[in-house]
Amino acid sequence: MRATVIYGPRDIRLDEVPDPAIQRPTDAIVRVTAACVCGSDLWAYRGIEETRRPHRIGHEFVGVVEAVGAEVRSVLPGDFVIAPFAISDGTCQHCRNGITTSCDRGGWWGARDADGLLADGGQGEAVRVPYADGTLVATPEAPEPALIPGLLALSDVMGTGHHAAVSARVTAGSTVVVVGDGAVGLCAILAARRLGAERIIAMSRHAPRQRVALGFGATDLVAERGEEGVARVMDLLGGAGADATLECVGTRESMLQAVDVTRPGGSVGYVGVPSGGAEFPIRTMFARNVNVAGGVAPVRAYLPDLLADVLKGQLDPGGVFDLVLPLTEVADAYAAMDSRTAIKVMLRT
Amino acid sequence: MRATVIYGPRDIRLDEVPDPAIQRPTDAIVRVTAACVCGSDLWAYRGIEETRRPHRIGHEFVGVVEAVGAEVRSVLPGDFVIAPFAISDGTCQHCRNGITTSCDRGGWWGARDADGLLADGGQGEAVRVPYADGTLVATPEAPEPALIPGLLALSDVMGTGHHAAVSARVTAGSTVVVVGDGAVGLCAILAARRLGAERIIAMSRHAPRQRVALGFGATDLVAERGEEGVARVMDLLGGAGADATLECVGTRESMLQAVDVTRPGGSVGYVGVPSGGAEFPIRTMFARNVNVAGGVAPVRAYLPDLLADVLKGQLDPGGVFDLVLPLTEVADAYAAMDSRTAIKVMLRT
Repeated sequence: MRATVIYGPRDIRLDEVPDPAIQRPTDAIVRVTAACVCGSDLWAYRGIEETRRPHRIGHEFVGVVEAVGAEVRSVLPGDFVIAPFAISDGTCQHCRNGITTSCDRGGWWGARDADGLLADGGQGEAVRVPYADGTLVATPEAPEPALIPGLLALSDVMGTGHHAAVSARVTAGSTVVVVGDGAVGLCAILAARRLGAERIIAMSRHAPRQRVALGFGATDLVAERGEEGVARVMDLLGGAGADATLECVGTRESMLQAVDVTRPGGSVGYVGVPSGGAEFPIRTMFARNVNVAGGVAPVRAYLPDLLADVLKGQLDPGGVFDLVLPLTEVADAYAAMDSRTAIKVMLRT
Repeated sequence: MRATVIYGPRDIRLDEVPDPAIQRPTDAIVRVTAACVCGSDLWAYRGIEETRRPHRIGHEFVGVVEAVGAEVRSVLPGDFVIAPFAISDGTCQHCRNGITTSCDRGGWWGARDADGLLADGGQGEAVRVPYADGTLVATPEAPEPALIPGLLALSDVMGTGHHAAVSARVTAGSTVVVVGDGAVGLCAILAARRLGAERIIAMSRHAPRQRVALGFGATDLVAERGEEGVARVMDLLGGAGADATLECVGTRESMLQAVDVTRPGGSVGYVGVPSGGAEFPIRTMFARNVNVAGGVAPVRAYLPDLLADVLKGQLDPGGVFDLVLPLTEVADAYAAMDSRTAIKVMLRT
């Protein structure tokens, strides 16, 4: 079968690799229907993260179960499943607390687990899924093709945007600012609307992303950044600042901006991987009682609820995919994400 | 009348000062019954904060209303009142949000307000109280003398400990770690118990403070600090970390320790004024979804609830006062706090 392998900066190839096989009784084999490229895949692509040896990549996919190990109970061959971006056993104390990304036995696609066993990357034709019961979520029946993009978005970006909103305690009537207009930021808008936010200010300066933001429920757009952007938000909110700010970038500038637009006693929900000297301004936060909550989104824990809404037609995050390519063109998919000509690329197998 | 004036490092004097008078229709004059010395008063006493010119000091007091301005509605001459450590008008958007320490018009005892009017310090025989309706809370009747220490603790340390517990979302059944065994840390133990915490681990190495901690509801004591202290807490909590950690110190070491003993998805409630290069370890927090919330405690907002419990005899934070001195010995009170021979000193007028 074929799967995406990263060799180094800007060197993405679709290689012939061995077919996956059940290696543990808790494994499943999933035939991939669709996968996608994540902003965090670009870290290795851009050389910010070193690629010491070629390895499989990708951590967002949906597909159909082909085989299951002897101990798997919750999914059966033939089931359509969504794989979140982290592997989790579903039974350890952290999984029971809903923080599946801190699972005692789980791990990451494309990386080795505690026993040295390598998990497959997700951008391939098939994947061995460890801890299938804990990791995968099946739909009740095979979904219509039109639902695939929305379901695929549940593997990462929608759950991550939702984590930002939940962490910032968005609730009915909240005033919300979303920092970042990538796929996660756009999904955070959807999540804030779903939780009943009254006002959703999207900080975005790119026309195509602004359009998606408005379609997803943004009530206001702010194109300015830095001090000017903060002043514009304050102006829109009558000088008070937002109840909840969803930080979906992770840089030093975006984090400071997020704290500055939040009202005293409000919360920043942050899900952008901290980079570029990002830090929390502790004295500002202390003086104004601005709280920060978030981190690596426990997408698996949110999947059942979000899936139910997608299946009912009440939630459609599929609009973040503005480019669909066959898996054979995965190198072009990375290039489009890298140049920001696409918001998010879906790969069809 | 006499009031405490700070002249410079370790130079505290009880000076003769003019009697206070109503200067605005929203003022009240309070004859002080008892005041106290705060850990933060020691910043100026130790010279960490510069004292450019002598000024009145102290921000925790209780007393009896002597006179009120024409617009004051909620307190009357003769009322026994508690003054929180910050002045707040009770009507601005931040006060309505419960963050009285961010009041648009409020300010700090001993400092100038936006109009250049100087607020009195609290360690004196009488005090002019700005925004009396927003700032003061009256008891229904004159309290028994035995209640005075508990009521005085509501002016700062008890409300601040409570803010740590509320910010860290302590709830029935929580496992809690309290970092810091000063008066605020000890009150945080009381607050955690009041909110139903099941397990309260106090990190304390001083026998007299350990005794108060146990009396206030600590279930375990950990004398070790740093990595050793973290390991000991993890051992007590079965390797998981605490649901909620109450950080009541504010140094770099205490903040890192607080984050390290918190479980994935748990929260640090922090109320220690950040000092000594304190920072939040953003990458650790992101990886483990450890949240931080807190800041300058909006004590005024919590006062009615906490006061009700003190008056019912269900809450008694008065035990933090292990030394009572007359106001004439205020210099000794500072010295005792500075040398940590006293946990907290009460000054009787």
